[in-house]
Amino acid sequence: MNEKEALANIRQKIDDIDLKIQQLLNDRAAMAQEVARIKMDSGEQADFYRPEREAMVLRTVMERNQGPLASAEVARLFREIMSACLAAEKPLQVAYLGPEGSFTQAAAQKQFGGSVELHPMTTIADVFHAVETSHACYGVVPVENSTEGMVSHTLDRFISSPLKINGEVTLRIHHYLLSKEKNLEDISKVYAHPQAIAQCRQWLMEQLPQAELVPLNSNSEAAKRVAAEPQNSAAIAANRAADIYGLSILARNIEDEVDNTTRFLVIGTQNVGPSGVDKTALLVATKNKPGALQTLLKPLADNSISMTRIESRPSRKGIWEYVFFIDIEGHIHEPAVASALSLLENESSMFRILGSYPKAVL
Amino acid sequence: MNEKEALANIRQKIDDIDLKIQQLLNDRAAMAQEVARIKMDSGEQADFYRPEREAMVLRTVMERNQGPLASAEVARLFREIMSACLAAEKPLQVAYLGPEGSFTQAAAQKQFGGSVELHPMTTIADVFHAVETSHACYGVVPVENSTEGMVSHTLDRFISSPLKINGEVTLRIHHYLLSKEKNLEDISKVYAHPQAIAQCRQWLMEQLPQAELVPLNSNSEAAKRVAAEPQNSAAIAANRAADIYGLSILARNIEDEVDNTTRFLVIGTQNVGPSGVDKTALLVATKNKPGALQTLLKPLADNSISMTRIESRPSRKGIWEYVFFIDIEGHIHEPAVASALSLLENESSMFRILGSYPKAVL
Repeated sequence: MNEKEALANIRQKIDDIDLKIQQLLNDRAAMAQEVARIKMDSGEQADFYRPEREAMVLRTVMERNQGPLASAEVARLFREIMSACLAAEKPLQVAYLGPEGSFTQAAAQKQFGGSVELHPMTTIADVFHAVETSHACYGVVPVENSTEGMVSHTLDRFISSPLKINGEVTLRIHHYLLSKEKNLEDISKVYAHPQAIAQCRQWLMEQLPQAELVPLNSNSEAAKRVAAEPQNSAAIAANRAADIYGLSILARNIEDEVDNTTRFLVIGTQNVGPSGVDKTALLVATKNKPGALQTLLKPLADNSISMTRIESRPSRKGIWEYVFFIDIEGHIHEPAVASALSLLENESSMFRILGSYPKAVL
Repeated sequence: MNEKEALANIRQKIDDIDLKIQQLLNDRAAMAQEVARIKMDSGEQADFYRPEREAMVLRTVMERNQGPLASAEVARLFREIMSACLAAEKPLQVAYLGPEGSFTQAAAQKQFGGSVELHPMTTIADVFHAVETSHACYGVVPVENSTEGMVSHTLDRFISSPLKINGEVTLRIHHYLLSKEKNLEDISKVYAHPQAIAQCRQWLMEQLPQAELVPLNSNSEAAKRVAAEPQNSAAIAANRAADIYGLSILARNIEDEVDNTTRFLVIGTQNVGPSGVDKTALLVATKNKPGALQTLLKPLADNSISMTRIESRPSRKGIWEYVFFIDIEGHIHEPAVASALSLLENESSMFRILGSYPKAVL
């Protein structure tokens, strides 16, 4: 068999595989529609998107994958397949913090795939509002945006919102050094958000030991400032800021940590079931007495429950001075979590479960 | 069988389907790797990405699709499957006109799927340069951006570049009315690129009959102008301009035509084979005599070949006063096209085939 015949032969095999895949994709969509029909018949308010079920499918797919496709690639394809099947069940509206092209849009696409309708909102409050008023089924907002410091807006919004956390998305974020200059040696000043400076400290020490580091409110502001100055300055910012402010990229991916990720929350109205690997978010206030926080957290340690994050925020309701946002590992349906949380609730002056949801798979 | 059992039953069937799909996806990737191996062994310069083959697969998939998944959805899934298989063969670098979040990025993703490495470039010339110097295998540039008028940069670049056209992508574009005002009745002036005004004329007449329409160089400039003015003005622009310039969205999708698409070209070094439904792009200059253009185009009409577009541009080489960019239907391997082009070549003082490539499928 010559090369041409060999190639034609394999292409025919690929065509045969494609026919089978297409049949199976449509079979799967038909099954998903059947699930939808049964749920509708039951008369209850039906949740078509099931974050815990999707997380379980993706984990299974990744665990059993033998290649040659990389596990993350296969998971990405299954995310899209589930997205398409869901759209055949019921078109999903998802609001996110815009503009188009924002990291939050990328996070929303990563979570929901390409078949949902994504609606950019101008503020985090607008995203909450869209879901609260049922204009969108779900919302996606940044919660730990290490470089832009937007965390507080999202957390504060939960104090007054009835919405729940239905999922989390993590995204890798890269930093770029932007300037009007063409050479690193001409840079004597670097502007950036303090956290961006911290994340690139080693690179800055090695490449720009002579440069003055000037902290600003945001990386966008840094890029804007560099654009307005005649020379010798640079900004740490996202790629896109180069075009918006007419700067050149002097260096790429200058973050010290290879794994510089930003975290987003999926907000919704659903109670998400356990997926096997879950997190639970709490909003609590302590009684106003010394050692109150330690007492509050003791049940978690006693039950060997990991706390992955705690953040204090001034309460706006005037009843408590501070509220705490606490993330723990586990789902409220797990007995150890349920009993620890019941003890924790006794010690708090305010206690709300913001949601149990699957830990980000990819 | 109660509802819970029925759902569990269907979920099990979905899991079984998923297992089969995953196996087939990996089988397909293994076949693609085998194709790559045969090509490498042959010693020739191998093209791993075959636009005509992808177009044929997508057309077949859409034609035979029986649902319940929509044909466009299945095609989108197959685009992603081919993208993942290609990445398993050879990671592909694609340069595009940035910034991230631009329409051109969306076009690049639509053409190449989510598994390629996309690199944003600052200018159209930079995209050409990246491909010419082999820093990217392919480039994606706008060619008929009806609202921003960037057409000329791309066409002019072909006059001096050896690159070929390897594909086209079409994208639907929406217009938004952006303003600091909250009510339409407060708008007395609308800024926009003349083509954007033309595309929204009916909507403007109905909704803002009293408003003065002010043409500017680009819609981005219009948004910027509105941001700088105290009140009563609005801009027609893309969604994202709202956030960049701090404006509110007063109205969405105000274009009169439902099908307001923008066209992009995939540029590369490849000779793309016929897919069955193709287009060919020509760059020609006429001999300087009366009626030369009519004579030039006669062979096309005589051979019943449709010309889909003609655009004259001033030549920068000084030898010809004008050059013409001509798009026709058909592939240079089709006998009618070949013979018509050979006649056309005789009539022209300069003649270059910029490429035959598959017509956009989706």
